Amino acid sequence: MTLQFPITQVIQRPGIIDLGWGSPDPALIPVTELADSAATTISHMGPSALAYGAPQGPGPLIEWLSHHVLGEVNRQPQPERIVITAGASQALDLFCTLFVEPGDTVLVESPCFHLARKILLDHSARLAPLTSGVLGPDANELRETLAKLRSKGERCRLMYCIPTFNNPTGRSWPQHCRDAIIEVAAAEELTIIEDDVYRDCAYDEPAYASLFERAPDGIVVRLGSFSKTVGPGLRLGWLQAHPMVVSGITDSGLLDSGGGINHLTAMVMQQFCLAGHFDSHLERMRGALRERRDALVTSLAECLPPGCSWTVPNGGYYVWLELPRGSDVAQFLPIAESHGVSFLPGALFFLSGGGVTAVRLAFSMYSSQELCEASRRLGVAIREWMIHKNSSKSI
Amino acid sequence: MTLQFPITQVIQRPGIIDLGWGSPDPALIPVTELADSAATTISHMGPSALAYGAPQGPGPLIEWLSHHVLGEVNRQPQPERIVITAGASQALDLFCTLFVEPGDTVLVESPCFHLARKILLDHSARLAPLTSGVLGPDANELRETLAKLRSKGERCRLMYCIPTFNNPTGRSWPQHCRDAIIEVAAAEELTIIEDDVYRDCAYDEPAYASLFERAPDGIVVRLGSFSKTVGPGLRLGWLQAHPMVVSGITDSGLLDSGGGINHLTAMVMQQFCLAGHFDSHLERMRGALRERRDALVTSLAECLPPGCSWTVPNGGYYVWLELPRGSDVAQFLPIAESHGVSFLPGALFFLSGGGVTAVRLAFSMYSSQELCEASRRLGVAIREWMIHKNSSKSI
Repeated sequence: MTLQFPITQVIQRPGIIDLGWGSPDPALIPVTELADSAATTISHMGPSALAYGAPQGPGPLIEWLSHHVLGEVNRQPQPERIVITAGASQALDLFCTLFVEPGDTVLVESPCFHLARKILLDHSARLAPLTSGVLGPDANELRETLAKLRSKGERCRLMYCIPTFNNPTGRSWPQHCRDAIIEVAAAEELTIIEDDVYRDCAYDEPAYASLFERAPDGIVVRLGSFSKTVGPGLRLGWLQAHPMVVSGITDSGLLDSGGGINHLTAMVMQQFCLAGHFDSHLERMRGALRERRDALVTSLAECLPPGCSWTVPNGGYYVWLELPRGSDVAQFLPIAESHGVSFLPGALFFLSGGGVTAVRLAFSMYSSQELCEASRRLGVAIREWMIHKNSSKSI
Repeated sequence: MTLQFPITQVIQRPGIIDLGWGSPDPALIPVTELADSAATTISHMGPSALAYGAPQGPGPLIEWLSHHVLGEVNRQPQPERIVITAGASQALDLFCTLFVEPGDTVLVESPCFHLARKILLDHSARLAPLTSGVLGPDANELRETLAKLRSKGERCRLMYCIPTFNNPTGRSWPQHCRDAIIEVAAAEELTIIEDDVYRDCAYDEPAYASLFERAPDGIVVRLGSFSKTVGPGLRLGWLQAHPMVVSGITDSGLLDSGGGINHLTAMVMQQFCLAGHFDSHLERMRGALRERRDALVTSLAECLPPGCSWTVPNGGYYVWLELPRGSDVAQFLPIAESHGVSFLPGALFFLSGGGVTAVRLAFSMYSSQELCEASRRLGVAIREWMIHKNSSKSI
């Protein structure tokens, strides 16, 4: 019964440190501050926190967010460009309902978050990959890919990407790449959906300015979330876009009928943010995640055999590990699990081939000690697997 | 600023008793019990209430609901047929994303909740009306309408309706109508979306058995909600359907990516329901709404001039008022508002004409005293308007 009707999505498998889950450690969630915020909100503002909410989200939270998402370039808060959503996934889902026509081709950064693809597919979009490497996607390739698709009669007006602390690679597009991609998008009337949920998890220096901030008006739709910084069970995020997009969303049947999409939680987070808890919590969260990032990359260096390489991300949740050339991660995964460690195979994040030798390691859910132990197990598993592969070959 | 970025959806216009809002009175929301439930949930179960939730919703809440939605016919709780949603509107929205193909024709009971139509249209459905009167829709007309649509090549596999305490009429389909409609649906492979959000608001006797309960397996998808009984700002409801539909929903990109659609609130309501608050609150809520229903229909009888007629609903939020023959409610509305009373014009709820002389009066948001005053103002406004109409005619 417990297994059939569980409470949470994450299932812990006994004996396995599972670096596959892109979830924050429940121990890092600011439970006390959230309990206080919920009690205060409901006791003091109960009737308005429990009535149908304003479709855009509660005003004071939008005001707070409009300052929070301010970058270096646009120094004027723009609350009319924000709508509160039930997380970034729901924002993407509703955007697709309203702005993606079935059969539209959507460009998807590759590698990139596989479940965003699943949401796009649920809306009957076709997907086309745009390769993204250490330097981000190539602007010329974007222009050529668009031209090729459009010459075949495909309607391609949208691109989905995670330019900052990418899921799965942990990498960020350099600034010159951002500007080059924006230039092509503006010239080609391509709207960019910038999934920016990891921005606040910056460990070394501030993240590069977002595409939203650098681009001309109306080019970029940016998604943000409290899931990676406060708690994913809140199901609270936001979408930042041109006021025409925001009003398209607030005028949707879903919001017209139900009001604000997650009103009570939005009111609780409004209290949490206005009381100053967000800023102090984010500082602690960043510190804890930085320590974990360091623990993982340091222990990987100590434990993995030669031939392995990995990113050292400046932010986000993920380390992207490349196993020695010729490896097939699909074959390695069961061996790793038999050694008590798991992960997501890199191939999952590619739209059409690629990532066969790669592994996504999430360092967000485990303590530094557990991450060190995970590295040790990975090292043992890789060595054992390589010996086995080589001896199989020699037979 | 207050107007541009408000907190709630309902805007109170000074001096107007606005019976247009289908919202519960904020004063009836069980604030204390909800504040306790939230504090207890977050303090005692914080990490699991704030982590990604199980896509179907938290197990204990599903178990509770599977008993709560039990009718007379199916006496076995069926938790595998329930998925928690962010309200009935979000349930309809997600169902459309997954199961409605653009260009599908959806039959819509007429008159019926206008914002459900808006959600269907956001998913590029075509809509076709099925007339529903005092005895509900006619089964033969359903069969003929389907045949006509399909003979024109339209793909019509879905019907949306509110058979119990209908929004806007307050009426319920009689049992024989329910069975006749189900029979046609089963024979014609038509799926019925039964919007059943008013069922718990029954004031005189229990509601008729739901279509879901009476129908063969797989014919009906039923939507439920805490919005009309506890608080709409919770954004919490459920969808009850064949396990294939439920697993289609839990396997969607939206739920795979974000987990349970409104997890924290679902955990709070789980605590609220398991602590017994739902049942005791519902008793109070029913009593308060029954009193308001009585106050409205009694005062209408005292105040309205001859030629007016209205439903006396056994449940739900609405009284459906017909003004004297030949009235045009669109012309009457500004006169009513100048007398300090407002409502939604009946025509809003018809897909293609109809309801010109009708008015929807919601009695859920105001006290009995205010409802009596609203009736008085309506009576004065109607009399004044009729004198004005007649004198205009004689000129």
